[in-house]
Amino acid sequence: METLWEYRYAYRMKSMKSSVIRELLKLTQKPEIISFAGGLPAPKIFPVKEFQEAAYRALENNAEKALQYGTTEGYLPLREMIAERSARYGLKINASNVAITSGSQQALDLIGRLFINRGDKIIVENPTYLGALQAWNAYGADYIPVPMDKEGMITSELEKALRKGAKFIYVLPNFQNPSGVTLSLQRRKELVELADRYGTPIVEDDPYGQIRFEGEHLPPVSVIDSEYREQEGSSYDSNVIYLSTFSKLLAPGIRIAWVIGAEGVIRKLVQAKQGADLHTSSFNQISVYEISQNNFLDKHVEVIRATYKVQRDAMLEAMDEFFPAEVKWTHPKGGMFLFVTLPKNLDATELFEKAIKKNVAYVPGVAFHALGGGKNTMRLNFSYPDSDTIREGIARLGNMLKEEIYVK
Amino acid sequence: METLWEYRYAYRMKSMKSSVIRELLKLTQKPEIISFAGGLPAPKIFPVKEFQEAAYRALENNAEKALQYGTTEGYLPLREMIAERSARYGLKINASNVAITSGSQQALDLIGRLFINRGDKIIVENPTYLGALQAWNAYGADYIPVPMDKEGMITSELEKALRKGAKFIYVLPNFQNPSGVTLSLQRRKELVELADRYGTPIVEDDPYGQIRFEGEHLPPVSVIDSEYREQEGSSYDSNVIYLSTFSKLLAPGIRIAWVIGAEGVIRKLVQAKQGADLHTSSFNQISVYEISQNNFLDKHVEVIRATYKVQRDAMLEAMDEFFPAEVKWTHPKGGMFLFVTLPKNLDATELFEKAIKKNVAYVPGVAFHALGGGKNTMRLNFSYPDSDTIREGIARLGNMLKEEIYVK
Repeated sequence: METLWEYRYAYRMKSMKSSVIRELLKLTQKPEIISFAGGLPAPKIFPVKEFQEAAYRALENNAEKALQYGTTEGYLPLREMIAERSARYGLKINASNVAITSGSQQALDLIGRLFINRGDKIIVENPTYLGALQAWNAYGADYIPVPMDKEGMITSELEKALRKGAKFIYVLPNFQNPSGVTLSLQRRKELVELADRYGTPIVEDDPYGQIRFEGEHLPPVSVIDSEYREQEGSSYDSNVIYLSTFSKLLAPGIRIAWVIGAEGVIRKLVQAKQGADLHTSSFNQISVYEISQNNFLDKHVEVIRATYKVQRDAMLEAMDEFFPAEVKWTHPKGGMFLFVTLPKNLDATELFEKAIKKNVAYVPGVAFHALGGGKNTMRLNFSYPDSDTIREGIARLGNMLKEEIYVK
Repeated sequence: METLWEYRYAYRMKSMKSSVIRELLKLTQKPEIISFAGGLPAPKIFPVKEFQEAAYRALENNAEKALQYGTTEGYLPLREMIAERSARYGLKINASNVAITSGSQQALDLIGRLFINRGDKIIVENPTYLGALQAWNAYGADYIPVPMDKEGMITSELEKALRKGAKFIYVLPNFQNPSGVTLSLQRRKELVELADRYGTPIVEDDPYGQIRFEGEHLPPVSVIDSEYREQEGSSYDSNVIYLSTFSKLLAPGIRIAWVIGAEGVIRKLVQAKQGADLHTSSFNQISVYEISQNNFLDKHVEVIRATYKVQRDAMLEAMDEFFPAEVKWTHPKGGMFLFVTLPKNLDATELFEKAIKKNVAYVPGVAFHALGGGKNTMRLNFSYPDSDTIREGIARLGNMLKEEIYVK
């Protein structure tokens, strides 16, 4: 029986239908399935003992703050710590440029709330992060997808998109989800120049930037933007809103992320957050601050890098061995994902059930394409399964692909 | 210097101006001020040791779940526990009727997201909870305030409001914030009948229901609604969405609340939450589940009741002693607030600075009036300050009021 509520949904519910992809992914839960579909950090390196100690200390020394209502912008020592750590990457900011959010998903949502009116166009990479599309669909966003190559978003295509008029550009410059691609330095500069020329601001989403296995760290788009506009003094007035998170550096279950922006933008984001959830858990913020002391965060990031590098190598090696030559894939220098392109006549969504029968799973790439397309692509995750499991799963997937390509 | 972002705010930002009230409340932070302005639980009874143990156990026995991404609807054992506890109050529900939210503020926000289109009318009590107005302003809501008396929302006035057409009715039936008033049983029945007659669903916000100091517990509006419509069997298909929270039962800093609704409504709320913050901290959900074991939650609620009762009594006694006869106030049987009505010619917002000079603070009642009004009212909190502090603060406030009423 339907209740009165069910006749009364707002227009934005229409864009919230349960997706085919989500239904497919329910099939990946069975224990016999090797899943490359998720986006989960490896639990074997969760800092469990350190969290126990940090939570204990948070309540031993700071119980009243940890258990009480807190400020919407977040715990000041944590925001100061983030500002200090960001200086390493060239961001000249202080705590007033930082707000804590309940995961980066909330930052994406608040950006939608602040900036997106129904029908506004957002420029996104093609493919792009599914969670951003989910967040902004709720505000009635339209999308202009820009194709990518090995250096990221193709700048000439970006310019065409900018001419159509967009509210902002959304970019994941490092080891992008889902493609694993990193935006090159030259492209970062061109992105900033074009954005400035067309008066279009940028959202830089950087959950994986610190999880680099090899090569040189590249300056964030926000830093290049500040330099391009010859910003003077120490105040951050970049046209870039920068997002990152402790989900990949410590653990996602604590839901602590942050957003960096010009002071005026942060103030508005904080106002929007007040209506959304008042503030992020004080207990978790103080625990994250505590666990990060004595250089633990840096040491732990090294462990993550080493672990995921081994697993990425295992995946790439197994793909070389088991995948047919007609199949191509990206070679990410960090992060958690790589992206596979099948011959044009294959459809990764159709193949999904066959993969499940072989007890292996992935995410069909079509899910990450804002306006459709990418039928012959798939995303594979290498952060969750260990190397032996990866090898076995890639062998199963390779067999399935060989059957499709050679037998049919 | 303004960044490009600042020219691009969405329409909904216009309703998010920094309020006069919020500016006033910044004045209450000084240590010499006795503040009745906040809405904070008493930190002296925070279960600190129990939280330390619960967090330790969550990580000792369940680390992978506690630190990993979780499901959007929330930790199943916690949702089952909430369903079981709700049965005491007559709610016939199971876990599929329960979703965990990041504080009740998020539940209010998600309700706005699901149901409010710009210009939709929401029926609210007058005065009503400020956080609901904040959440729904972001979706462009309009309000129809219904006056209250000692028994809550006046039903004949509610009927007039319903004739104007409303998306839903928002009601805080127990020890309402800000008034402290409880909706009587007769009025609850009339509310359900009228809502049914006009086909208008209800949001029942019940953060304080368990914090009752005296008198009989009244059945929730959602239970009366199910009974009224002669619901059969055990499935919950009430026209009421019911909200409550652990913020008042355990601690607000952990940000764990819940929403109860018909299964179809919960499914949509969960979809909306996925875009908003993916899920609420797994660590905190498991910690709350752990701390609630072995009857601790019930025992702790008894401590809260006893503590706040003493403080409420101290406030009422002091008001009898120090307040001029021209001033009236409510006598809440639970919760955290009472509401003061001054003679019509006095303006509590204007008096605020005088109160601050006497080192005492409150929230001017106008903040809780959706369409203005209530200038001669104020909200006082009795959960945070202890009895001696309450007595001293009420004496200061009484002196200020006497000067205003008798000297001028």
